[in-house]
Amino acid sequence: MYTLYWSPGTASLCVHWMLIELGKPHELVKVDIEAGEHRKPEYLKLNPGGVIPTLIVDGAPLSEAAALCMILAERHPEAGFAVPIGDAQRAAYVSWLFFLSNTLQTAYHNWFHPDQPAGQAAVEAVKAFARRRIEACLERMDRQIARSGSYLFADRVTAADFVTTMLMRWARNMPKPATEWPAIAAYVKRMKARPSFRTLYEREGLTEWA
Amino acid sequence: MYTLYWSPGTASLCVHWMLIELGKPHELVKVDIEAGEHRKPEYLKLNPGGVIPTLIVDGAPLSEAAALCMILAERHPEAGFAVPIGDAQRAAYVSWLFFLSNTLQTAYHNWFHPDQPAGQAAVEAVKAFARRRIEACLERMDRQIARSGSYLFADRVTAADFVTTMLMRWARNMPKPATEWPAIAAYVKRMKARPSFRTLYEREGLTEWA
Repeated sequence: MYTLYWSPGTASLCVHWMLIELGKPHELVKVDIEAGEHRKPEYLKLNPGGVIPTLIVDGAPLSEAAALCMILAERHPEAGFAVPIGDAQRAAYVSWLFFLSNTLQTAYHNWFHPDQPAGQAAVEAVKAFARRRIEACLERMDRQIARSGSYLFADRVTAADFVTTMLMRWARNMPKPATEWPAIAAYVKRMKARPSFRTLYEREGLTEWA
Repeated sequence: MYTLYWSPGTASLCVHWMLIELGKPHELVKVDIEAGEHRKPEYLKLNPGGVIPTLIVDGAPLSEAAALCMILAERHPEAGFAVPIGDAQRAAYVSWLFFLSNTLQTAYHNWFHPDQPAGQAAVEAVKAFARRRIEACLERMDRQIARSGSYLFADRVTAADFVTTMLMRWARNMPKPATEWPAIAAYVKRMKARPSFRTLYEREGLTEWA
């Protein structure tokens, strides 16, 4: 039994999506970000950084979306979403998951919260820098997918693809959406065609980028 | 055979340290950051983001320091540096490695390169924000170590400890060095007592924080 603390369209999306795909029992606890619930003591006890998501695994609260997807994949190897230890693509799989988390996701953080690193005066400069970094990442991802095949790692869907698709979605209202890169566009179409994607959208009440 | 592209005291340090610990054959290629070698086409072919380190694993260039430590640990399980799949602490181990990489390491990046996100005008504001984030992370790490035992995960040294010790070192010239937190101070002392640490310092030509 898993419990996911989530909020629509945020970093919890890839974890929620994998829980649906895996078909494992899970409880959903919606965190109202607008009301600041993620900054309240009750939530901070589970997640000291006050970030979404938190996943309760064997009774222990854990964070970091990409880590949670990696963990879910390896706890349920029968679904085939983990690149197993010993596989020729294992090292690349681990490296990409970290890259998505520490480079692309953090650049989005600056794009969506441009006042954080240096206040209101620097908002435009922060956004311009974040945009350049995001587009450089998308360029790199497009090359990787074009080279790889249908998914990030040849023709198998892995935990990294759920994280990636979520992060491609986040660019939907940016000056240059991820789907303007051709390999990414075809890839996103494949991922969105999964029946679980519709379930996810219904549950999260999402409409954009459907 | 591994090949590590490195530069003294940078994010390559934890990978270099683990290679020494594992005693596996490896070649070192020093990248001259002052001379901008990490921005030259030759290096960018291996590492599109132009970051240090790159580790060549089975002929393929890979990046992301925390990922590389995780990978080395699992490729050489006999050393005991991986928390294996199925272990009760596995999920926490993966989650911490991502947290170190995407939260603490990226906050240091802003501290050391405060002109990047928004130019010279915002340098002081960026540094102040980075400092708050770094200290919040150190606070959290101190609690984790105090609760855990000798290392991040009870009494075994894992890949996460080499990454952590490197990141504790990076605060040595900050207003509040990591060793001002008591559990971190004792932890760092234990990690620095490893014979491999002296070898690492000799090889990298380091003296500070010896």
